[in-house]
Amino acid sequence: MVRNEARRTALLDAAVDVLAEEGARGLTYRAIDVRAGVPAGTASNYFANRDELMVEVMARVHVRLMPSDESVAASLDLPRDRELTVKFMHDIIRRADADKACYLAMMELRLEATRRPEIRDALTRTIAENIEANVAFNEESALPGDRMTVVSLYFAMTGLIYERLTLPDVVAAMDLDELVEVLVDRAIGPD
Amino acid sequence: MVRNEARRTALLDAAVDVLAEEGARGLTYRAIDVRAGVPAGTASNYFANRDELMVEVMARVHVRLMPSDESVAASLDLPRDRELTVKFMHDIIRRADADKACYLAMMELRLEATRRPEIRDALTRTIAENIEANVAFNEESALPGDRMTVVSLYFAMTGLIYERLTLPDVVAAMDLDELVEVLVDRAIGPD
Repeated sequence: MVRNEARRTALLDAAVDVLAEEGARGLTYRAIDVRAGVPAGTASNYFANRDELMVEVMARVHVRLMPSDESVAASLDLPRDRELTVKFMHDIIRRADADKACYLAMMELRLEATRRPEIRDALTRTIAENIEANVAFNEESALPGDRMTVVSLYFAMTGLIYERLTLPDVVAAMDLDELVEVLVDRAIGPD
Repeated sequence: MVRNEARRTALLDAAVDVLAEEGARGLTYRAIDVRAGVPAGTASNYFANRDELMVEVMARVHVRLMPSDESVAASLDLPRDRELTVKFMHDIIRRADADKACYLAMMELRLEATRRPEIRDALTRTIAENIEANVAFNEESALPGDRMTVVSLYFAMTGLIYERLTLPDVVAAMDLDELVEVLVDRAIGPD
């Protein structure tokens, strides 16, 4: 396998676009090469097989959707109250809006996971670790709420972003600021 | 267009299976004919085009996932308290478990909706009407909570079912009964 990391990342970003636009069935080495503007045969030199490619795409999606360290550090200068949790939720929505292809690619990978056990195992680890990291972050940062606050918000935000990306007009009919306030308030629960 | 309703329903059910197993890209008239065990050319006699087919599949999915009138009537004989809301949530999860293909097909249709405006409009109407029907049901049945209880639970349950169907081991690591209790309690909020 070839080891040019910048080229590998460019191929993974091309794969994200192909997944988002064409769906999992459209994700071929040839489609990636075309999308990345590289000679035919390039992608097949970088990834041993399609399962490995998809697992690497998932890792790349995860990196692209993570907030920057600077952004997290700046947020943690603010009071550790429910308003900060509201801000974090809006940050997640903003990142999803700014990189729809990543979320759509992740949805395609999830559906592909129902058909391919190797992808399912890798995605399960990524998502489970992500939830645990969020629980630990909430506790270490002394943000309001408990473990179930984080888990409740994880599911509600998954549903909300999924809806916004696939059927935006359903959510456009709602007041997004009010919705996020209520989701956070209720997920935190009574003191 | 042919008007044998039983045959039409069988073709739509075959389309649900094809979507769940092969993805949106695999949904061809030929695949539906094969899946339904009917002569080649049958499906193309029932649906004017692929958009119309997908819109009809969505309507069929909606019918298959709805609770029976008897089930709802029996539930409404119970006290109208948070326990009943918990029961309704478990009913939704049970129906999703019993008919995974419907949910997976709906996910495929949602992703297809990001690419095809006609499907997006039809799905948007279906989902928006469904949320409003749930809000009205909650109020008319004097179930606990308010409009935002129903909306919060809609998003949380969407996220939860999506996760259970695509990455079941993420949710299997949690106590589902506790999770649903907490989601309902917090969505209802303080009295």
